[in-house]
Amino acid sequence: MNSSKPPLALSGERFTAVYRLAVEAAEVEARARAIGLEQTVEFPEALIPSDAIREQIVGEIAAITPCTRTDGGSGFEVSIRYPVEAAGSELTQLLNVLFGNVALQPGVRLQRIELPPALLEQFRGPRFGIAGLRRALVPDPLHPTGTPPEAAKASSTPPRRPLLCTALKPMGLSPSELAELAYRLTLGGIDLIKDDHGLADQPFCRFDERVARCAEAVHRANQETGGHSLYLPNVTAPAPAVMARAQRAKADGAGGLLFCPGLAGLDLMRVLADDDALALPILSHPALFGGLAINPGTGIAHGLLFATLLRLAGADATIFPHSGGRFTFTASECQEIADAAQASLGTLQPIWPVPAGGMRLERVPELVDSYGSDSIFLIGGDLHAGPDLVERCQAFRALVERSADGSVIDGHQ
Amino acid sequence: MNSSKPPLALSGERFTAVYRLAVEAAEVEARARAIGLEQTVEFPEALIPSDAIREQIVGEIAAITPCTRTDGGSGFEVSIRYPVEAAGSELTQLLNVLFGNVALQPGVRLQRIELPPALLEQFRGPRFGIAGLRRALVPDPLHPTGTPPEAAKASSTPPRRPLLCTALKPMGLSPSELAELAYRLTLGGIDLIKDDHGLADQPFCRFDERVARCAEAVHRANQETGGHSLYLPNVTAPAPAVMARAQRAKADGAGGLLFCPGLAGLDLMRVLADDDALALPILSHPALFGGLAINPGTGIAHGLLFATLLRLAGADATIFPHSGGRFTFTASECQEIADAAQASLGTLQPIWPVPAGGMRLERVPELVDSYGSDSIFLIGGDLHAGPDLVERCQAFRALVERSADGSVIDGHQ
Repeated sequence: MNSSKPPLALSGERFTAVYRLAVEAAEVEARARAIGLEQTVEFPEALIPSDAIREQIVGEIAAITPCTRTDGGSGFEVSIRYPVEAAGSELTQLLNVLFGNVALQPGVRLQRIELPPALLEQFRGPRFGIAGLRRALVPDPLHPTGTPPEAAKASSTPPRRPLLCTALKPMGLSPSELAELAYRLTLGGIDLIKDDHGLADQPFCRFDERVARCAEAVHRANQETGGHSLYLPNVTAPAPAVMARAQRAKADGAGGLLFCPGLAGLDLMRVLADDDALALPILSHPALFGGLAINPGTGIAHGLLFATLLRLAGADATIFPHSGGRFTFTASECQEIADAAQASLGTLQPIWPVPAGGMRLERVPELVDSYGSDSIFLIGGDLHAGPDLVERCQAFRALVERSADGSVIDGHQ
Repeated sequence: MNSSKPPLALSGERFTAVYRLAVEAAEVEARARAIGLEQTVEFPEALIPSDAIREQIVGEIAAITPCTRTDGGSGFEVSIRYPVEAAGSELTQLLNVLFGNVALQPGVRLQRIELPPALLEQFRGPRFGIAGLRRALVPDPLHPTGTPPEAAKASSTPPRRPLLCTALKPMGLSPSELAELAYRLTLGGIDLIKDDHGLADQPFCRFDERVARCAEAVHRANQETGGHSLYLPNVTAPAPAVMARAQRAKADGAGGLLFCPGLAGLDLMRVLADDDALALPILSHPALFGGLAINPGTGIAHGLLFATLLRLAGADATIFPHSGGRFTFTASECQEIADAAQASLGTLQPIWPVPAGGMRLERVPELVDSYGSDSIFLIGGDLHAGPDLVERCQAFRALVERSADGSVIDGHQ
């Protein structure tokens, strides 16, 4: 066996992870050093077999500053710089270096990351983002839908208002019943009609039949209105089925995909996003995944978990529970997500924040104030609270248009 | 469009999730009902469009009992029964119904689950388990390794003692250096030699070269000792690469696989485990995944997260940080994992608890006491703390043999 030892010669380029630690001043440096070891060599410092590994591989402490922790206590923010080569051009391994083992330790929260171009360039990121999804909402002039000429002309400009989204539910309805709902939601002017994330491939509602029927129903309603609502089926599935379902959805005319990275794997979302033949907008749902954010002293900060990491993995829009609904995110946590969704991140596109989780029509003006035009409002159950679903959707749409900047009049109307 | 509505006619068979809630007695029933709705219809109860959905789909409350919560406060244990059809024969959707949305809510922890045969039968589970992995440690008589006849005869009986495991590290070593380590660890009598979970496919240590060299080194040392140590490379990777790396590892002579379901997806582990052509034992590593257990009032209980769910996904062994190491699991949390690893779960095989995370040789007697013979002790850095690696491995082995039941003498010696 060849035992020659080529010298370790890394680029010296580093990426940074900023952790918030619940420690006393006397312990913070030792704790920071322990993290730099844990996330790389996972080896006792004194036993590291070479200076090259100690100098080039081990995460180095770049800064230690006192802070108020997310859970209100005092602590320290510690910046640790890891060699870009440790992440090996893989999202899975980047996650591992950032937070793999320390995720199991109390008193440490991954607050934010800073990735140099050498690392960011490895990720294509969102294919559509803000601008691309707006364009996807304009009918393709080469494939007219039978729209009356006037309506077709009116709809050639992408809407600049916040977008409207809802979910097909409840679980238990048949594909035909969901398609009938999809039809009426489209008539009502909802832009994005997604499967509820609980619709998978159940015996009472098979994926194939549901997607074919719902895509057809949305298409048919689009032809009547001259609009271009999109249907986004849920392709969260066992790993071998994900791409096949997405391709089937595309073939059936779906306009996007819903995916739960916490259930099916973050990297599988990246695979969907990177597929040039698929080329569909991806709406990310936080099932399970979001559990990593909710304990303020541990886990991953809201903005990083619900936006930055999802952008690396190619999501075009990120669903999260808005404050005051059925969940308990605070207004500032939601703002952190919205900020991270659209903050500069190399050449990666900004994405859509999608506040959700028990929103009601009367909260639309507040949502507009909080999130502005580049956001998607997801209202589910409350659309069903009136006597007529189509009318209630139209009221939702009118509220969004009135609440948004008066000068922004949607071309669809 | 066909709008006929076939009646919803589910089997009536249910699976049970038991949650611990941090609520007052006056609120517990409403909270329990809210979970049953959230995890199925995700729809306001009053708006559910049919009695069939209300009766057959919505999670029903089976029991509410006062309890001491894991975080020490008082609360309630609530059992909710979901229709088996809601999980749709998919691990991803089973996880979703059990904990998808409520993972984002504070004050609720998924404590345990009860799955009926109709659901358990959908999962093959561990291919090797306790007995199968023991058998894999005996050299195949049809493929002799050049072992001296006496040694070969002695090694024809599987060891009945706890197994020894270590990791190839630190990150930064070249494939040749890691192979040299693997050779000496095998000479020292370590049964399972795994990649450190931080070894992926980095430019300074490519997967292909590492696996070829390390597999060869372990094989060569086995030939010298007459033993049958296994090499388990890390196949945690971007989704499209996982199976290809596993197949490459198999072709190169790897004896098992290391996989991090939290980084690469739980269902991908199931795919590896279910592959009849691959047929390699799988050692599960808790990177990131384990973060869902560490906050006692939320997330998923240790036994369920680190054992039951991994068994459903086909892991043969589960690594977790033993109490008193670099992590903070308590002895009783570790016991909970060990119990769940070997508890009855339909026809699914029991699996190996693998206490780890900063274990040292002097703790072997305690590990034997805590976990018994059907366990794997993973010691990393501490094996490198002596003047001679091979001798220290032999000392580890001797300690395990002496500490285990005196009547259990390993045939390898």
